[in-house]
Amino acid sequence: MKQIEVKLQRQNQDYSILIANSLLSNEDLINSTVKERQVCIVSNQNIYDLYAEKIKNGLKNRQIIEVILPEGEEYKNISSWGKILDAMMQNRFARDSAILALGGGVIGDLAGFAAASFQRGVAVYQVPTSLLAQVDSSIGGKTGVNHELGKNMIGAFWQPKAVLIDPEVLRTLPEREFTAGMGEVIKYGLINNLEFFKYLEENFQAINNKNPEHLAKIITTSAQAKVDIVQADEFEGGKRALLNLGHTFGHALETLGNYTLYKHGEAVAIGIRIAAELAAIEQKISDESRKRICQILTNFNLPISYQNKFQVEDIYQAMFADKKVRAGKLRLVKFREFCNCEVSADSKEKDILEAINLAK
Amino acid sequence: MKQIEVKLQRQNQDYSILIANSLLSNEDLINSTVKERQVCIVSNQNIYDLYAEKIKNGLKNRQIIEVILPEGEEYKNISSWGKILDAMMQNRFARDSAILALGGGVIGDLAGFAAASFQRGVAVYQVPTSLLAQVDSSIGGKTGVNHELGKNMIGAFWQPKAVLIDPEVLRTLPEREFTAGMGEVIKYGLINNLEFFKYLEENFQAINNKNPEHLAKIITTSAQAKVDIVQADEFEGGKRALLNLGHTFGHALETLGNYTLYKHGEAVAIGIRIAAELAAIEQKISDESRKRICQILTNFNLPISYQNKFQVEDIYQAMFADKKVRAGKLRLVKFREFCNCEVSADSKEKDILEAINLAK
Repeated sequence: MKQIEVKLQRQNQDYSILIANSLLSNEDLINSTVKERQVCIVSNQNIYDLYAEKIKNGLKNRQIIEVILPEGEEYKNISSWGKILDAMMQNRFARDSAILALGGGVIGDLAGFAAASFQRGVAVYQVPTSLLAQVDSSIGGKTGVNHELGKNMIGAFWQPKAVLIDPEVLRTLPEREFTAGMGEVIKYGLINNLEFFKYLEENFQAINNKNPEHLAKIITTSAQAKVDIVQADEFEGGKRALLNLGHTFGHALETLGNYTLYKHGEAVAIGIRIAAELAAIEQKISDESRKRICQILTNFNLPISYQNKFQVEDIYQAMFADKKVRAGKLRLVKFREFCNCEVSADSKEKDILEAINLAK
Repeated sequence: MKQIEVKLQRQNQDYSILIANSLLSNEDLINSTVKERQVCIVSNQNIYDLYAEKIKNGLKNRQIIEVILPEGEEYKNISSWGKILDAMMQNRFARDSAILALGGGVIGDLAGFAAASFQRGVAVYQVPTSLLAQVDSSIGGKTGVNHELGKNMIGAFWQPKAVLIDPEVLRTLPEREFTAGMGEVIKYGLINNLEFFKYLEENFQAINNKNPEHLAKIITTSAQAKVDIVQADEFEGGKRALLNLGHTFGHALETLGNYTLYKHGEAVAIGIRIAAELAAIEQKISDESRKRICQILTNFNLPISYQNKFQVEDIYQAMFADKKVRAGKLRLVKFREFCNCEVSADSKEKDILEAINLAK
């Protein structure tokens, strides 16, 4: 078993990320990790049917309730969050109770925000079942729901008590979900890890075939990369924003597609491609590097162009809803050089528009 | 001007409480304290009409929006919270925007929770206009809304960037609101400050007459007392629970009265009287001390008996909804001796029932 320790500013919030094949069948581990007497499992029906029984076998002598939410980003809203709180209130859950998030990024974000706000905060355990959630969203304490006018606009920083990752569950993950998760994995290479980028270039076939050794490797490397950045900047004052490479473009596409057209990782992939185009325009990276970025996205079956019904100007305008906007200025994660990113507000509008146009 | 510094675990969350007569007319102070460019003022119509103009005069060159909420505890709910978030989204408020809570405890709690959750947290300035809010609810970072099944059940710990207190605004406060606030002021004496208790005994007439010097004194002493406890125990692991003297009984009365019959401070006053009765029964305080407690509550025009339509057993049962209940056990703030309290779960049921009965 791999174990990554996360050390935070408030020391009583330190926690562990445990990564092991068949972890969900390890009853003793689950029983000893979850300390609370009352546990609310939040999940989707699909995932619940596959894995809840295993987890419940580990949770001996607990008062367990379940909140099964419909699947999809469109249900990541205040109404779903309210359902979790209602269930906990109706079952007289106390301040020393816990929520266990069993699912992908949507479930983790919803359950995390419910845990952050129930009685001003109860424990949450993240059990991510999608690649995206395993390498990104379950780690770092960002929780929240969407507002009809913007993604992730309502939420809290709320750290989990533990993150339990079983790479084996990826075998039952729909192919498109796996692909979308790879968008975030590639991102870690591009931000600051050339070696990992090369590893992904060389091993894309084995990874696409879900070779267990390679899956454990990419999850562990990605989780560690995220932890390193979160530890340095828990509340996104600076460095943490690097994790948003491709995200400002991506969020705009998600918004224009009403959160249903693109999966998050797909929109991020197109966003990474736009960032690469911008970097090439600004001569930060060579044309060869730009092509390598497009190629790796393609090798992992990710899209690198948006549907041409979207207008360049509309995408540009939608970017201003981004949380990194400060004093009306667009701040982007940009390539300083290949596999080395920074946050900057110095791009010209015409270059940004051109980069968006090139990804049509 | 009195200035109280609040030092917290996360050092970037330290803040100041500023207390001065006519503070709201001090344009320079307001302009330099509120650093953000976008400010959402949350208030009730009444208070807004009285004081918003002054504050807006201080906020030069800001984008200011206003959310005016209906008055009353029954509006401290998810719907009101959502209205604040909607307004900020519609006006494209960014992560470096701020909320300014101008009002009593309900406004402060609602605006504070909106600030805690908008884009995972923006600045909030508390400008409390009721005595209760000035001495208690605006300080310490507890924010939240009520759930239909329980009070303050949804919320967050979220510290203000500053608390601005102008004792002069109490002159326009309805008499019953002032009286209710005195319930919390007296509490600080009873918890651990005999000297302050004696001061209140000796000066009750001047305080009831709203002598400005005495008002500034009781607000400053109360705010400092709250800060001392919050600094020692920000997240209510232990000592902070002392602030709930009289509150477990009080919350039960508020619940039975549907949150409309009693104001919070009135219910707390009756709760303090019950705590005094319990302490006398358990021989922790003398009968003379018990009488002094009843007398001071009466001198400040607070109730010391509940309406006799309520049954002792119903009050007792309603107490179990309290957030301090652990593993089904009632934990109460009790007198160790006169003006010296502790949290304890060792009272006998029959003694508690008798104490409740004596306050009929």
